[in-house]
Amino acid sequence: MVRVRLAGICNTDFEILRGYHNFKGTPGHEFVGEVVDAKPLERSSDGHLEEEASREAAQRWKGQRVVGEINISCAGFSGHARCDSCRAGVPAHCAQRRVLGIIKHDGAFADYLTLPLCNLHAVPDEVSDEQAVFTEPLAAACRILEQVPVLSHREIVVLGDGKLAQLIARVMATTGKNVVMLGKYEEKLAVARAAGIRTQNVAEKWESFVRKHGHGFSLVIEATGSPQGFSRALDLLQPRGVLVLKSTFHGATQIQTWPIVVNEVVVMGSRCGPFGPAMEMLRSGQVDPRPLISRTFPLREARAAMAAARKPGVLKVLLRM
Amino acid sequence: MVRVRLAGICNTDFEILRGYHNFKGTPGHEFVGEVVDAKPLERSSDGHLEEEASREAAQRWKGQRVVGEINISCAGFSGHARCDSCRAGVPAHCAQRRVLGIIKHDGAFADYLTLPLCNLHAVPDEVSDEQAVFTEPLAAACRILEQVPVLSHREIVVLGDGKLAQLIARVMATTGKNVVMLGKYEEKLAVARAAGIRTQNVAEKWESFVRKHGHGFSLVIEATGSPQGFSRALDLLQPRGVLVLKSTFHGATQIQTWPIVVNEVVVMGSRCGPFGPAMEMLRSGQVDPRPLISRTFPLREARAAMAAARKPGVLKVLLRM
Repeated sequence: MVRVRLAGICNTDFEILRGYHNFKGTPGHEFVGEVVDAKPLERSSDGHLEEEASREAAQRWKGQRVVGEINISCAGFSGHARCDSCRAGVPAHCAQRRVLGIIKHDGAFADYLTLPLCNLHAVPDEVSDEQAVFTEPLAAACRILEQVPVLSHREIVVLGDGKLAQLIARVMATTGKNVVMLGKYEEKLAVARAAGIRTQNVAEKWESFVRKHGHGFSLVIEATGSPQGFSRALDLLQPRGVLVLKSTFHGATQIQTWPIVVNEVVVMGSRCGPFGPAMEMLRSGQVDPRPLISRTFPLREARAAMAAARKPGVLKVLLRM
Repeated sequence: MVRVRLAGICNTDFEILRGYHNFKGTPGHEFVGEVVDAKPLERSSDGHLEEEASREAAQRWKGQRVVGEINISCAGFSGHARCDSCRAGVPAHCAQRRVLGIIKHDGAFADYLTLPLCNLHAVPDEVSDEQAVFTEPLAAACRILEQVPVLSHREIVVLGDGKLAQLIARVMATTGKNVVMLGKYEEKLAVARAAGIRTQNVAEKWESFVRKHGHGFSLVIEATGSPQGFSRALDLLQPRGVLVLKSTFHGATQIQTWPIVVNEVVVMGSRCGPFGPAMEMLRSGQVDPRPLISRTFPLREARAAMAAARKPGVLKVLLRM
């Protein structure tokens, strides 16, 4: 059991309110908190020794400041890897998984939440709560480095200027590659520029941008959160280019699929990522997410916080418990 | 200049009639024929020696039975690689390309067609016209082996039972892997079974098939030619699975993109492929496409041939000149 100290509002939280995953419960999956209690899983047929070991582990975590991975796999809630994904070491894709604040498990917009100990990561003293609360989305940005050999591309286009796009651009920039963010909101693009990222405002200039640079990039990361993102990314990609898709939204969208075939594009879905490298980027200061914080509200003003987070030009809104 | 002997009708030809690529001209891009004339490109600033060499090459081709690659790159029509794709050795993606019977170049449903010599492949004596006319679509099937390390997958699902799906399933079966074709037409599935391919008729049984086998396959090749194909393939794929997209059709389709992201699926467009391996599969008999021939019409009955090719249950319809 974790006492939540700080939680972040993500676009997925709005999609959930619109019906995504049909989730009924407490939303919120980005947090930093403190372990207040821990106990071994109750299991019928397990040995005494194992229980003792897990009781000890539980004791060790108490009082620890933590962030947490959001996918609760069958290994996490039953104590044993039961499914093919978990046995293959990929709990993030466990078919029976519950997901903090998204699928069958109450989330972080609350005073307390629960997670299996195996989901937790200790936060080093040098990392403040305001940094640590970004670990989950930063890990999602790091996931791209596990999927795409980005150094083999001449430059990296990040399509979108929102919260996740900002973190992705920063993670991509750590590789030393040329990164360009294409966005619509001058305030948001300015935040990226302050971190040394090239930007281009394409609001109302999309057609002319495509005329000039269309089919000119070998790697485009789509993080617009909007239904148009997919098609727009296809317009930017060179033949045989790679499109990393990050946006999840409720509902369907109209897509012409023949350009994927004719240009032999590779479209790669990308979701949760590794907490270790994300935490290290925070600790070392390679990525400083604090300029992304637009406002912080107390939990009891969650409704106002959600409204504020939806406003154009606003980046991360936090809830303090 | 090639005298066409036999040409094949492809689904793309129907899509062109529906407006795909806005092509006005003679359709047809699958053929076998005989070189009747060849001459060097007329170029202003080229040396005498080069012209002589190309005149000799032209002479050598006369009378040769040939098939031809359909992408006419800038290197092909101007004599020099001018664009980045051509310089990089990927003429199939030349941005200025013309495509036989598809983009700015009259096609094979005619007595004669023209192609650059560099597009031609000689047909060995052991390969009959009825086999050779399948070289182009068979090469498109072989393209998948250039893109996906198929042996690393437990089994290969081919979604669709049409002309291209049949060739793909045969090419995939040459790898020794377990191949299963999911289709709707019993007559077509029977043709695949006769070639040793496992089949499953999912017509009106799609929902129950997905309940039982949904998200159960790591590699799905979509060759349905239908707008539903993409979504159905996503329903079959395991997390982190690979979807090879082959269908091109005019217009847009409704797609839920969040499963691509959440399941971290890789979607790979796949178009034209290598003629060398395709011809070798025909020569060695590893793939025999002749059972796919449903009917052959003379060119003057092209209209009736097109009508016949559209009928359900019909596979390849040929035109003889």
